[in-house]
Amino acid sequence: MWARFLLKMRTFKLTIEYDGTDFQGWQIQAKGERTVQAEIEKVLLKIFQTPIKIHGSGRTDTGVHAQGQVAHCHIKTDKSCEELTRALNGNLERDISILSIEDVPSDFHARFSVKSKTYRYSIINQPVRSALYRHYCLQFSQKLNIKRMKEEALSLIGEYDFRSFQASDPARKDRETIRTIHRIDIKKTNNLITIDIEANGFLYKMVRNIVGTLLDIGTGKLPAGSMKRIRQERNRIKAGDTAKPHGLCLLEVNY
Amino acid sequence: MWARFLLKMRTFKLTIEYDGTDFQGWQIQAKGERTVQAEIEKVLLKIFQTPIKIHGSGRTDTGVHAQGQVAHCHIKTDKSCEELTRALNGNLERDISILSIEDVPSDFHARFSVKSKTYRYSIINQPVRSALYRHYCLQFSQKLNIKRMKEEALSLIGEYDFRSFQASDPARKDRETIRTIHRIDIKKTNNLITIDIEANGFLYKMVRNIVGTLLDIGTGKLPAGSMKRIRQERNRIKAGDTAKPHGLCLLEVNY
Repeated sequence: MWARFLLKMRTFKLTIEYDGTDFQGWQIQAKGERTVQAEIEKVLLKIFQTPIKIHGSGRTDTGVHAQGQVAHCHIKTDKSCEELTRALNGNLERDISILSIEDVPSDFHARFSVKSKTYRYSIINQPVRSALYRHYCLQFSQKLNIKRMKEEALSLIGEYDFRSFQASDPARKDRETIRTIHRIDIKKTNNLITIDIEANGFLYKMVRNIVGTLLDIGTGKLPAGSMKRIRQERNRIKAGDTAKPHGLCLLEVNY
Repeated sequence: MWARFLLKMRTFKLTIEYDGTDFQGWQIQAKGERTVQAEIEKVLLKIFQTPIKIHGSGRTDTGVHAQGQVAHCHIKTDKSCEELTRALNGNLERDISILSIEDVPSDFHARFSVKSKTYRYSIINQPVRSALYRHYCLQFSQKLNIKRMKEEALSLIGEYDFRSFQASDPARKDRETIRTIHRIDIKKTNNLITIDIEANGFLYKMVRNIVGTLLDIGTGKLPAGSMKRIRQERNRIKAGDTAKPHGLCLLEVNY
């Protein structure tokens, strides 16, 4: 053990994929529920025999997936990044995988250094539920006007106060509600619809609230011009319902 | 109950999606393992209070998925196809979904009326295992020469004796080994590779044995010209290993 004192402290960036189905989200919970952060820290403790805290780019909720969540941590070790990746993947359960580990400068912070994040919301637009996509796509029966959804989404691109799309739970409201959405790409391939949203940051539940509103636009429940009006009203009650978590995936975090 | 005698016997075509992960394949097993056929027949018994047998287009193995398996059955009922679909989906567990039910002529047979079937084999080509695709894609670490795989696959298109790609288990060998492959489409999008094979029929394990051989070609373990030579030798021992079942999905059955 004394050899550890000779080792230099290094900062690592971890890129992490997980299937959110069987997790109570990313963040460690007081009650010890199964979370992604807790599972990774448990394995780090097993490998290094000392508690190592990881810092994620942000939380994801119960049922939300990630293809490219990012976290950082500080470890005194002389192992290579490839050795660390293998050690973690060898010990983690199969619904988490460490895609890569990189050495980064010591001032790298997974949350504070973020330039932008991209989320994808996936919808299977068919009248019956889907067996294969049941954990990964929202099943939506009604016909959707994709062209209208694309047009209305344009009024969210830019730097705006997104208060209308914040969480309705008062305990989880963000204080600062101005964000910049860089792009919203809506694509339909057969009966699979994906909505990609890239922004410099997101309010809690913002993607799912935007998707719920886009669905109301797609069905015609909300008329043309609604999205701009809802954004301008800065009132959560004007937007659509929060779309279910299992259709959501954190695709990428850019630094 | 006497009213049932007044009802006309109808033949139904069911299109079925399933996540094969938690099934011992399609076909009912003597030992009562959980199979797709058994689950559907159990629900039909519950709905109609009489045993109804369903006939699939063919078996799928443990872990193999289906987006468009087809089965037929005969039922005396005056329910509409939509009512039947809802009743089945309402009673089946969520890893099976009935995509559609149609009335078909009484001589329709899910197996004997098949014109062609399409299977898709999915590979995630990256050095680490994938959490999100763990049940649906083979993870393959080595670099693959996709161009070479496409070229070699061409020598399987047409009517040939595919004995080299039959199951090695003597108990599961098909007697008649001539089949016609209509097309093999190999696509790569980022690190996801799909191999679609359409044929008038398949020998037991034929797709997985072709995929195993294509992987050996992609890595360079087998030289150019191998696929044609292997097919011509009509000897199972010459082909590659059987690729794992969880990457395989029955996409479509055409009549």
